[in-house]
Amino acid sequence: MNLQNDLILRAARGERTERTPVWVMRQAGRVLKEYRDVRAKAGSFKNLLFNPELSCEVTIQPVDIYGVDAAILFSDILVIPEAMGLEYKMDEGKGPSFEQTIRSKADLAKITTEAVEEKLEYVFQTIRLIKKDLNGRVPLIGFAGAPWTIFCYMTEGKGSKTFSVPRAMIMRDPELAHALLSAITDATIVYLKKQIEEGCDMIQLFDSWAGVLNKESYNTFALPYMKRICDEIQSVPKTVFALGAYYSLADLAQLSCNTVGLDWHMDPIWARSVVGNSKTLQGNLDPAVLYGDFETIRTKTKEMLSKFGATKHIANLGHGVYPDIAPDKLKCFIDTIKEYQHAQ
Amino acid sequence: MNLQNDLILRAARGERTERTPVWVMRQAGRVLKEYRDVRAKAGSFKNLLFNPELSCEVTIQPVDIYGVDAAILFSDILVIPEAMGLEYKMDEGKGPSFEQTIRSKADLAKITTEAVEEKLEYVFQTIRLIKKDLNGRVPLIGFAGAPWTIFCYMTEGKGSKTFSVPRAMIMRDPELAHALLSAITDATIVYLKKQIEEGCDMIQLFDSWAGVLNKESYNTFALPYMKRICDEIQSVPKTVFALGAYYSLADLAQLSCNTVGLDWHMDPIWARSVVGNSKTLQGNLDPAVLYGDFETIRTKTKEMLSKFGATKHIANLGHGVYPDIAPDKLKCFIDTIKEYQHAQ
Repeated sequence: MNLQNDLILRAARGERTERTPVWVMRQAGRVLKEYRDVRAKAGSFKNLLFNPELSCEVTIQPVDIYGVDAAILFSDILVIPEAMGLEYKMDEGKGPSFEQTIRSKADLAKITTEAVEEKLEYVFQTIRLIKKDLNGRVPLIGFAGAPWTIFCYMTEGKGSKTFSVPRAMIMRDPELAHALLSAITDATIVYLKKQIEEGCDMIQLFDSWAGVLNKESYNTFALPYMKRICDEIQSVPKTVFALGAYYSLADLAQLSCNTVGLDWHMDPIWARSVVGNSKTLQGNLDPAVLYGDFETIRTKTKEMLSKFGATKHIANLGHGVYPDIAPDKLKCFIDTIKEYQHAQ
Repeated sequence: MNLQNDLILRAARGERTERTPVWVMRQAGRVLKEYRDVRAKAGSFKNLLFNPELSCEVTIQPVDIYGVDAAILFSDILVIPEAMGLEYKMDEGKGPSFEQTIRSKADLAKITTEAVEEKLEYVFQTIRLIKKDLNGRVPLIGFAGAPWTIFCYMTEGKGSKTFSVPRAMIMRDPELAHALLSAITDATIVYLKKQIEEGCDMIQLFDSWAGVLNKESYNTFALPYMKRICDEIQSVPKTVFALGAYYSLADLAQLSCNTVGLDWHMDPIWARSVVGNSKTLQGNLDPAVLYGDFETIRTKTKEMLSKFGATKHIANLGHGVYPDIAPDKLKCFIDTIKEYQHAQ
């Protein structure tokens, strides 16, 4: 099906576009009352996740409400460990937690990369519903967690300030760490290929816990697995977003991806000098700017757009939108981007 | 009193030393069984904090056990908000929490910068005991939280992944934010001057939550207050450590401090190029390296020492030592530094 709005795909491929395209990390989420209503109806986050009709509904909401230039699949990066055999709970206000973790070779034997597609059929059903509902209005972004981030959760078992468990494991038993990372990578490749087969028009890898490693360990335990994924997936544009990994930005830019996502600490001009001109950049307004008044949001958003320039930029926040942001502030950010005219 | 070992002071002043000096962030803490025994005797973290004899004892422990080149006062950055009128609780495994927070002008009226010295007399008593006990063996490092970090706790009321409350406040009510930051700065200057008067030989400012801001907001709401403190304190060497604020490293280097602390993400050679040659650098081994075997620790520590070079370096980890590190691994790190011979 031909897309009516393919700005993001063209920007990802480095083509000149009429204006800078925009979507927002966590646009399908708690910032919208319409999302919270659906989640309340579902009863819990995981009920919502497992329900293709409701997942489709919240995926479409920001397209209808904000007119963003892409939908992003409503799902969770932790469906991969679950498909590999580690169930998790999502407690309101506390985040995810796993009853079982992988900390030994014996633990590793308990997980599997078999039948990932079958176990994640509910996600693919969601994608089919979304594609039908979108009906070509905007592209659909698929996604997965980067292997290092999934590894963090599967070993630590929950969120952590320091992630000492995975960081200890790569020091004490690098072989075990590589075996688990490799299994996660296998499952992720299968998962993303099927997302694309079902209709996702581009994909993003989220490395949320990149920022706990040092450069050498990031380049040993994180980047090679992102590389395998990027190399295996050739049919759609790919974005990598490694929160806090400024120290490896030059190396991330060597991946066979189209777009590198930037967090809000990175100056766009600095990032462009590090990344070079071959990639599209995505980001990166400080999400806290949306706590400001409309004038401030417009000013800061325009400053950001001016720094990134007219091409090879997909506008976004530098992190997921915070749930307590007023929806009309988020709309102001999006509208400012859509109305912006770059200097000739 | 003349110090028998003043390596750290000389390194901070940029003088050549016989070897690279070393101390470790959180060296007086849970990594040591001896510390945990004293804390158990005290009954709680705050009982220990309020007890000068026991605080002195745990301050001295790493000097006796590891032979580090400095003691650091056992205390907590949150004694400042408490002295300003906000009591806090420290729950095992959950971190600090404040019952009252500062979120409005009316809240601001509830706090005071009066009588900070009197309220913190237990800290000064601890310093006097430590100085007597150290008897000139090594210097004593005093410290405080940087105003931005204290501001985060006083507004948010507890630790947070995003610190949305302080980040919203600087956007919505910058005047209120500046008033609170200014009051914190006033109290901190009084506190640090008195620490020095009682015998602290150098001081460090910890900006633990520097990493949540963007560069512009860091330069507006954090740096000017660190500058005031650095400008007011001229009698002893000063170190600033802003975790995660790589984007403002060049600006931090403009402060009238002697030493800039680096976290474990920063490559020493890159940091030296940004900071220039006028400052001493402190850090910055990844604390997770201490999960490795002895050989790995020695190799990585020597690599670090070689990158920093023979002068203007105070060796440390790039973050506080993690409590589950084996004490003999920490000792291996310290011994490797003390035995290292720089290439001529």
